[in-house]
Amino acid sequence: MTIMGTVANGAEAGGPKKTAEGAVVRDISSYSPVQGSRLEHKPPLPSVFHSNFRISHGPPSSAAGNAAEIEKLFPCLFGQPSVQLRPSERAAYNADQKLKIGVVLSGGQAPGGHNVIAGIFDYLQEHAEGSILYGFRGGPAGIMRNKVLVITEEFLFPFRNQGGFDIICSGRDKIETPEQFLQAEQTVKTLDLDGLVVIGGDDSNTNAALLAEYFRSRNLKTHVIGCPKTIDGDLKSSHVPISFGFDTACKIYSEMIGNIMVDARSTGKYYHFVRLMGRAASHITLECALQTHPNVAVIGEEVNAHKQTLRQVTNTIADVVCKRAAMGKHYGVILIPEGLIDFIPEIQHLIAELNEILATSVCDEAGHWKEKLAPPCRALFVSLPHNIQEELLLERDPHGNVQVARIETEKMLISMIETELLARKHEETFAGTFKGQAHFFGYEGRCGMPTNFDATYCYALGFAAGSLLHTGQTGLIASIGNLTAPSTDWTVGGTALTELMDVERRKGKFKPVIKKAMVELDGAPFKKFVSLRDQWAVEDSYLCPGPIQFSGPTANDTNYTLKLELGALDV
Amino acid sequence: MTIMGTVANGAEAGGPKKTAEGAVVRDISSYSPVQGSRLEHKPPLPSVFHSNFRISHGPPSSAAGNAAEIEKLFPCLFGQPSVQLRPSERAAYNADQKLKIGVVLSGGQAPGGHNVIAGIFDYLQEHAEGSILYGFRGGPAGIMRNKVLVITEEFLFPFRNQGGFDIICSGRDKIETPEQFLQAEQTVKTLDLDGLVVIGGDDSNTNAALLAEYFRSRNLKTHVIGCPKTIDGDLKSSHVPISFGFDTACKIYSEMIGNIMVDARSTGKYYHFVRLMGRAASHITLECALQTHPNVAVIGEEVNAHKQTLRQVTNTIADVVCKRAAMGKHYGVILIPEGLIDFIPEIQHLIAELNEILATSVCDEAGHWKEKLAPPCRALFVSLPHNIQEELLLERDPHGNVQVARIETEKMLISMIETELLARKHEETFAGTFKGQAHFFGYEGRCGMPTNFDATYCYALGFAAGSLLHTGQTGLIASIGNLTAPSTDWTVGGTALTELMDVERRKGKFKPVIKKAMVELDGAPFKKFVSLRDQWAVEDSYLCPGPIQFSGPTANDTNYTLKLELGALDV
Repeated sequence: MTIMGTVANGAEAGGPKKTAEGAVVRDISSYSPVQGSRLEHKPPLPSVFHSNFRISHGPPSSAAGNAAEIEKLFPCLFGQPSVQLRPSERAAYNADQKLKIGVVLSGGQAPGGHNVIAGIFDYLQEHAEGSILYGFRGGPAGIMRNKVLVITEEFLFPFRNQGGFDIICSGRDKIETPEQFLQAEQTVKTLDLDGLVVIGGDDSNTNAALLAEYFRSRNLKTHVIGCPKTIDGDLKSSHVPISFGFDTACKIYSEMIGNIMVDARSTGKYYHFVRLMGRAASHITLECALQTHPNVAVIGEEVNAHKQTLRQVTNTIADVVCKRAAMGKHYGVILIPEGLIDFIPEIQHLIAELNEILATSVCDEAGHWKEKLAPPCRALFVSLPHNIQEELLLERDPHGNVQVARIETEKMLISMIETELLARKHEETFAGTFKGQAHFFGYEGRCGMPTNFDATYCYALGFAAGSLLHTGQTGLIASIGNLTAPSTDWTVGGTALTELMDVERRKGKFKPVIKKAMVELDGAPFKKFVSLRDQWAVEDSYLCPGPIQFSGPTANDTNYTLKLELGALDV
Repeated sequence: MTIMGTVANGAEAGGPKKTAEGAVVRDISSYSPVQGSRLEHKPPLPSVFHSNFRISHGPPSSAAGNAAEIEKLFPCLFGQPSVQLRPSERAAYNADQKLKIGVVLSGGQAPGGHNVIAGIFDYLQEHAEGSILYGFRGGPAGIMRNKVLVITEEFLFPFRNQGGFDIICSGRDKIETPEQFLQAEQTVKTLDLDGLVVIGGDDSNTNAALLAEYFRSRNLKTHVIGCPKTIDGDLKSSHVPISFGFDTACKIYSEMIGNIMVDARSTGKYYHFVRLMGRAASHITLECALQTHPNVAVIGEEVNAHKQTLRQVTNTIADVVCKRAAMGKHYGVILIPEGLIDFIPEIQHLIAELNEILATSVCDEAGHWKEKLAPPCRALFVSLPHNIQEELLLERDPHGNVQVARIETEKMLISMIETELLARKHEETFAGTFKGQAHFFGYEGRCGMPTNFDATYCYALGFAAGSLLHTGQTGLIASIGNLTAPSTDWTVGGTALTELMDVERRKGKFKPVIKKAMVELDGAPFKKFVSLRDQWAVEDSYLCPGPIQFSGPTANDTNYTLKLELGALDV
């Protein structure tokens, strides 16, 4: 019994329907009306795919940092140019060539993944008929163990424009050790692969580059192309303007935030604290703020740049509560990035000390263990709400570390602000009421049906990946540009993965990494936010984006981050 | 400074724009694209409003129970017939009459409230030009204190088809004491009101009937009409097929649940426990189950009817987890009604004992106070997870009672199932893994933009309320029928509020109440659910309804509960 293809209503007396290759075909007869209508949606392609195209090479590439070390780590690939597809009279590829391509989904889910696969599939159908597309099941482990299925139109169709990664599922394994690279080599040899498409975030694309380098060094014919995926929006560069999934996830969260804002204003008695997924960077919080105009949005990168303490963060929010109370408003909406704790230096110190202490001793009931904490850490620890203290002590991962993502930061802030406001009440600097409501939005957004933007973008990424492999490219990440123009005018190319890389020193060795793109404090989205937030704090500028529409005048809108970063909106 | 009309971007140098009557006009220039597009939406009306209409009276009405007592409580109104609007050559009303009508929003928010007000307003514009519509601000308190504004097209327009109750806000006050009735009398006399429309749930409509009776007994000209509002779906009868807001709220929750299901299946490692708003009845949970096909949906009424213990509820879910584990599935989605705890008799006993004990003594650290609990209650209490014990002890309302709605039932169940599965692991009847994720969906749904169904239904309710007042009716609740047909074929009428009533004995007196409509275990929606749930438990029949669409083929769909109850879908 596999996880895939077990939609119940398809289970007839003879069992579920299967493709000629044995893959279970998902039954769509029980799809919801919207799911059904999305199956028929055909994302429009960039015009370069309407005709023949050729490959135009850019200048030699370098690296995002430590080019000399990157060159050592990628002797075959380093310096290769990025490429662009250009319309041409003659095709740059052999239309008679039958390719064998593998595709893998890696890491957390993001809306649109199915459309990348559909794009690769349709590219092959249109430009290299008779090709085979393999799907590796369950992420990179599927490559190592050669867990694979053949993707046919019949198998693929039920997933077109649908959310989730369930067509072949994903996984978080990495191909790291020499043995694992050998396993991957074995698989691509067994399947006789011409190409492999890795759909993933920063880590997965780093892995894609290492595989590309390895396969080339072994003189294998298998080329590797990456695709930028993550709702967090922290995989981007000058040539990769956005990762897919960010648009949909932010719109889903913003729908909910907008609804809560209307509720807050109608009811007039709650402060809603909304923690938003997005661990490393605060792009999601920033985008949702631009879409909804909350009273406060905490941007982790700013907290970190100003080395703010937890108390400073708390006080900033408490100040807004007091200002609003003076205006007779006892309600509001506050957005908090999931990774806030990671951005506050003093909490990082506390967690490090706790990890150290608890690795060697237990927490005695009387609390004597706390004496081992350095005085500033101890003061911080005892200032935290009781339940957060418990979470810090109890919730540990298998390595004995605090599971920061499980800490309910929104509840912690509510509790600390309650304490702060009580103090201000005694000082008679606050005379209002404060009731907090906590929310966490995460899973709701990772698997939503992709917006038209993500559906179209992903489909184009799939076509890009197909065309790059078809023209013999390797070690590139598919990159679609000019994204604020109509999709026919989007540019298509591939960016050298090594150009996105820097090195980090780990266990005495240099390791290549694609640096996470954090919120830039001098970037247009943050500047726009800063120009408006004081107004948002006290006035109710709440905006209600409403549910994502797939047709009608608003259906093809993108997001503020993209429009501001690409200069399509003024700061 | 008022809560209303403070949209920031409207604040020009000269302050926000106001109507001639002084009400702040909300600035729509900063609305989101979807908000903007909804402003232009014109809900279609039942065809009876396309021409002249007359009033057709039904037979004398009775009561839902204790008719003799209801008659004593409503000597003027009892027995009056319900009415239907019928097309006719001559109008049943005087088109030259200029009416003065007041409207009030009462209780929790539900999507569509603004459209009821728009419906009343447009009815008056079309059929009684020159009439005045007053909006009472902040709920029934606004009636008692004569806090009122004049609703003009300019003021109303920004709220058309928008979520929330923020046009005039709502409140939870009741008009109960003789002094309060006198205050209301004073207000309707001051404003010279011909009619009052009360938009609310069961309590508010009971209050509407009492007001109608009181005004008539005092020979005031002010008539009173109710409108059925509550996302909980527990205000309905044979003539009031559904309360407004239920459709939108369930679709918003189901969108999120569907997304989480796709996530669960794609990731394969979490059981998501989703607690859904809807305190008294489990209609929302049942409807969301029909829309999404979860592995388990707990229906409070069933738990109560079978006098299930918390352990039985826990074990039912644990059994499904075990069955699925045996199939290699370590993920799932479980829906839980917010009011679950209210349905479990043993927990009710425990809470009653706790309220009693804690009213007179404190909880000593050593736990000796627990000895005051009766043995079954004590056993139940100590079996509860630590944090739930704390919530039971700490979270009390101003009356000293446990705040049941604040108890995180979903976390309690996760914790208890963990314990149960650990025991089964030791007994070797469970060999899988179980990781719970907790969610609560409530506020997100109460203030969403109304679906086309709710927008149209509410607009028709507003027209109905206007027409009933215009034709001299009182003590009725606006009732729209034939709701599964196209909206032009909907029937329009008013149902005698006393017909929905029974009495309850409170403080030695009979009090009239509109009984909450609970999930009927022999009703079509529950039967449909029962016929499918065993399949849903083990197979992944997950359905992803996707975001609410306002245009396209799926935009006018209603919900399963309505379709099944009205026989438009087979069980």
